[in-house]
Amino acid sequence: MELEYVLPGDIEKRSFEIIDAELKNNGIHLDDKNRLVIMRAIHTSADLEYARTLRFSEDAVAKAQELIKNGADIVTDTNMALSGISKKTLARYGGEVHCFMADPEVAAKASEMQVTRAYISMRKAAETIKKPVIFAIGNAPTALVSLHEMMEEGSYQPAFVIGVPVGFVNVVAAKELIVNDKVDSIVNIGRKGGSNIAAAIVNALLYTI
Amino acid sequence: MELEYVLPGDIEKRSFEIIDAELKNNGIHLDDKNRLVIMRAIHTSADLEYARTLRFSEDAVAKAQELIKNGADIVTDTNMALSGISKKTLARYGGEVHCFMADPEVAAKASEMQVTRAYISMRKAAETIKKPVIFAIGNAPTALVSLHEMMEEGSYQPAFVIGVPVGFVNVVAAKELIVNDKVDSIVNIGRKGGSNIAAAIVNALLYTI
Repeated sequence: MELEYVLPGDIEKRSFEIIDAELKNNGIHLDDKNRLVIMRAIHTSADLEYARTLRFSEDAVAKAQELIKNGADIVTDTNMALSGISKKTLARYGGEVHCFMADPEVAAKASEMQVTRAYISMRKAAETIKKPVIFAIGNAPTALVSLHEMMEEGSYQPAFVIGVPVGFVNVVAAKELIVNDKVDSIVNIGRKGGSNIAAAIVNALLYTI
Repeated sequence: MELEYVLPGDIEKRSFEIIDAELKNNGIHLDDKNRLVIMRAIHTSADLEYARTLRFSEDAVAKAQELIKNGADIVTDTNMALSGISKKTLARYGGEVHCFMADPEVAAKASEMQVTRAYISMRKAAETIKKPVIFAIGNAPTALVSLHEMMEEGSYQPAFVIGVPVGFVNVVAAKELIVNDKVDSIVNIGRKGGSNIAAAIVNALLYTI
């Protein structure tokens, strides 16, 4: 296969044109409201499956963007996702990104309770952040279970959940919980997702405000 | 779907059992030498396709691990990949991870030459790191093109290339270059890959030394 010369500034545009064409060839039509989020998930994974598996609650994109414009913070379940999110763009609206996975207190409590650090890190976020939070979960289904349980208990309400953990153990079930919870969300049903997908979805929201 | 209770310390083991069973069901047998790298790529993506698309040069895993044991550094093309690599484990052998993508000098030169920052960041690594380097490329095909050109010019020889960029523009072609270059490598042919896959492959190498 030959290399095609594409100016650095045009690579993303060219990628999106190719994705567009392939979706058309596969007979997939994207809802305009969700289009850029789906496109960016595909762009970051080269996996067209996201066009069929991403689930958006009503007006999810507009609601998430409204939260960001009003200064909401973002909490991730990996430092990789944190690293991939455009913190500069978020800061323009007054928001910050947090990840409590490396917090020694979280590690100690998780070990004591025999649960995951991701599970405890959600509780830590709920306790310490005093403004609306968008949770961007790309790794641990137990983070989603933790959020779900707090909602059930009535102890905490996330402003928005991006639920795209990846894997084989409890991933499908944890995502189902969030889809059925009373919370605005973008969830990728099935096993696929990842920290890269979580970051891509947040960036899609940020770049199109 | 019901949640299954799995102790935090057993989640990874359980995931690997499920992956194993599904590979068997799909009639896929993994070469023992490459097994743990492939398993970890699947674990991080929930995508069984990696069992068929990862290409290993001769004794690639043993050679990469030998480099790490001798203190090789790692260079990534994203801060996400850098963030996902177990720097503590690498440090035990004397290695460090670098990413030059946010270097202002790299940005200036890329803009002047109308090439990508990834392209220039490889040249920067070649010029500044005075020990063997394993390149872990999960995002930019132009990083692979840059490495390929330096090998062609005879100006620099990477010790090892993990070539798993993702995307639609020049990704397939750039990976083909590396597969055919005189360099030890692990490459995922086709469009798929990512910073998460690059980090997972490095971690698989680190965890099984």
